[in-house]
Amino acid sequence: MYLEDYEVGAKAEIGSYLFTADEIVRFAKRFDPQPFHLSEEAGLAGPFKGLAASGWHTCAIWMKLMVAYQIRMAKERMAAGLPVGRAGPSPGFTDLRWRVPVMAGDTLTYFASVLETRPSASRPGWGLLTGLNSAVNQNGVEAFRFTSAVFVERRPG
Amino acid sequence: MYLEDYEVGAKAEIGSYLFTADEIVRFAKRFDPQPFHLSEEAGLAGPFKGLAASGWHTCAIWMKLMVAYQIRMAKERMAAGLPVGRAGPSPGFTDLRWRVPVMAGDTLTYFASVLETRPSASRPGWGLLTGLNSAVNQNGVEAFRFTSAVFVERRPG
Repeated sequence: MYLEDYEVGAKAEIGSYLFTADEIVRFAKRFDPQPFHLSEEAGLAGPFKGLAASGWHTCAIWMKLMVAYQIRMAKERMAAGLPVGRAGPSPGFTDLRWRVPVMAGDTLTYFASVLETRPSASRPGWGLLTGLNSAVNQNGVEAFRFTSAVFVERRPG
Repeated sequence: MYLEDYEVGAKAEIGSYLFTADEIVRFAKRFDPQPFHLSEEAGLAGPFKGLAASGWHTCAIWMKLMVAYQIRMAKERMAAGLPVGRAGPSPGFTDLRWRVPVMAGDTLTYFASVLETRPSASRPGWGLLTGLNSAVNQNGVEAFRFTSAVFVERRPG
């Protein structure tokens, strides 16, 4: 989609992901080897009372699902004969909150909504899309949210 | 270390990390399969003019180096006969900026400085440590920064 195709206030379901104990431990061994991310036993003695996913794991899965979502949207647009805009890099983000832990066996469903779109001053032909991203667990409790920014191509002409 | 051991303004070098092309592609395949993170060829056609690491990869490596740093510090304290406080979970962070891309072959050196320490209202016996974290590449250019928050145990008594 091009910058002009994003409607402020629109909210999309991006995808869902089951955090298995194996995946949680695999991520933690590589990137976040704190005891409460490495085993159920250590987790029970820690602040989460069980095996909890690294917060960075919940972020990385957001990115994974967002890329897959963008590819699905692009294919739909191409199938409908619509042009596809490029998504560019992100300058960063803000206000990330891990609100409740993501425990082994939890499934998060991720959502994205559009907060603001504006032309970029620094990148001609591109705009900056500000979005609110969140993830809700299988009990309907929000586990994670942050405000993202990403460069998005403007509609030609 | 306990909350009371952190001095506002103190800055520490956490560690360095070489981002190889293999590691960049491996991370991207699992979590961020955008073309400019997947191959040098696609990267050359994209916004970074080469193969660049996922921004979430630079975050995950920060966590990896920070955990290793905390373990080193804990061992030093134990060797000196000092008590070791526990680090707890993080409620989130803010103001993350990816300032320049991290390209294949770049080495980032990560730093952490103490912005604020205060007792936690919600967790008796714990405090909240706010820190400024950054990473500088081999050319001395800051590539990444964010403001973190983490619960840290208070000194007993």
